[in-house]
Amino acid sequence: MGAREVGLPDVVPSSRELPSRVTIWEVGARDGLQNESVVVPVAVKLEFLDRLASAGLSVLEATSFVHPKWVPQLADAAELLDGLVQRPGVTYPVLVPNERGLDRALEAGVQHIAIFASATETFASRNLNRTLESQFEMFEPTVARALAAGMDVRGYVSMCFGDPWEGAVSRAQVVGVGERLLEMGCSQLSLGDTIGVATPGQVEALLGGFGDVSRLAVHFHDTYGQALSNTLAALRCGVTTVDSSAGGLGGCPYAESATGNLATEDLVWMLDGLGVETGVDLDKLVETSVWMAERLGRPSPSRVVRALGK
Amino acid sequence: MGAREVGLPDVVPSSRELPSRVTIWEVGARDGLQNESVVVPVAVKLEFLDRLASAGLSVLEATSFVHPKWVPQLADAAELLDGLVQRPGVTYPVLVPNERGLDRALEAGVQHIAIFASATETFASRNLNRTLESQFEMFEPTVARALAAGMDVRGYVSMCFGDPWEGAVSRAQVVGVGERLLEMGCSQLSLGDTIGVATPGQVEALLGGFGDVSRLAVHFHDTYGQALSNTLAALRCGVTTVDSSAGGLGGCPYAESATGNLATEDLVWMLDGLGVETGVDLDKLVETSVWMAERLGRPSPSRVVRALGK
Repeated sequence: MGAREVGLPDVVPSSRELPSRVTIWEVGARDGLQNESVVVPVAVKLEFLDRLASAGLSVLEATSFVHPKWVPQLADAAELLDGLVQRPGVTYPVLVPNERGLDRALEAGVQHIAIFASATETFASRNLNRTLESQFEMFEPTVARALAAGMDVRGYVSMCFGDPWEGAVSRAQVVGVGERLLEMGCSQLSLGDTIGVATPGQVEALLGGFGDVSRLAVHFHDTYGQALSNTLAALRCGVTTVDSSAGGLGGCPYAESATGNLATEDLVWMLDGLGVETGVDLDKLVETSVWMAERLGRPSPSRVVRALGK
Repeated sequence: MGAREVGLPDVVPSSRELPSRVTIWEVGARDGLQNESVVVPVAVKLEFLDRLASAGLSVLEATSFVHPKWVPQLADAAELLDGLVQRPGVTYPVLVPNERGLDRALEAGVQHIAIFASATETFASRNLNRTLESQFEMFEPTVARALAAGMDVRGYVSMCFGDPWEGAVSRAQVVGVGERLLEMGCSQLSLGDTIGVATPGQVEALLGGFGDVSRLAVHFHDTYGQALSNTLAALRCGVTTVDSSAGGLGGCPYAESATGNLATEDLVWMLDGLGVETGVDLDKLVETSVWMAERLGRPSPSRVVRALGK
């Protein structure tokens, strides 16, 4: 039963407060592919990025300068950036974990970077080999040098809504970590539900803990099916930048079609229906995700891709 | 990364209007199983219903008296009801398409029935072999006799948000069909997004078209990943009864793990997190859906079942 055969149904804006336009921060090529078990050739990644730009996405997180020992999927970062033909109007941020990563980013001529902080002690220790406090000693010189070089810096805050080792996470602690990053000079924070456990009341409460939502983005994983509802809650709080991953890339390797990030297609379907502009051509995007799923050898976990991508 | 190992994260009620309690109308045994390609033995169905009741679900749509020629999966309706041990405090409504179905329901001693109307001309024709208008000639004597026998009658309205043949559906037409069913004596309407295309603004607009939401329930399919967001929108409009299917049963047979109904587990996860009472024990429910998925020979499409059901 292809609803699209007779065109999309009604566009009905919400009667409640919603932004008129949302910027989608597409993380498929970085957060998506770094969590896929297949290592994708650099030529495929370049075509993927170009297809995403052609589908109207204007922010494409391209890769990461994390050490290849930790993320072999993105070991080709320098080669990828060397081969990247940047489209006008599109930005291609790169994740940079520390000063060594920044050196490589500077060398590659990158203009937008993102750093990756933890909201919890345990994840700081496990993911960064740092304490909650000492992570800032790593970020401070990184951000200072990036700003001095004229770069724009985004700060990710991970484990904002729950931590697999600690359970509930103190909102004050998340806000504290986020504000330190803003004070350092990050232009935007991306608040991440790294394990996908959040529900909409938590989202409202955390966003309400920040004085100003204009520099906040949200980053939801769909592990418990909550990503889109949480996004809706965030939009109602005034957030206008949403992270998502084309085709829902980023599923865990241990389960076929397990879910990682919020799928960009599912997000665009909702925003299209609400009359919220994204600039994205959904058909082109679905086509891209089908193409990528073929390269990864597993079906996309995106509901929209499964429904339309035939 | 099992978040449950350290207990559920924060329960954070929404700062916005939400009901304190939601009744889940569990449709897995009827709407779920009638759309599965495997025909499940009656003993398994009985165990399924008993496990669902034991998990705290208080409304279990048990089966349907649709002609077995159309729904062979539920051809055992009479046998099932004969074997059913009803738990106190649990209701077991049965779908009844017409007077012939009602005769069988009366014979089986059923106390709660549901009828199934179409909001669109094409679906009335294809599913009921009726026109939009003449479907009421079928329902009127059915409902009148059911009420005279002391039964409670729910009215489903299908294709409320989009129709695969007609596209957009007039809200006035949906409201008109619904109000006719209420006037006939239905105690509740279940507004169905049969093809899963709706977005939250549509939900708010349709619910706003009815004078009183207290007799409305919502029934979302997750084909485009929108079911939970639409449910959240409906709850904010004052709806307190939500249809869902344990494990997301009801996927189309052509695609492994394709999605049908909103999964009860994904709904309960959200409501638990929001502090909205449902009476459901999520762990027991997940266990039941894992058990049922084994019997169907395919993984559950519920995100929560996949994450927790290991």
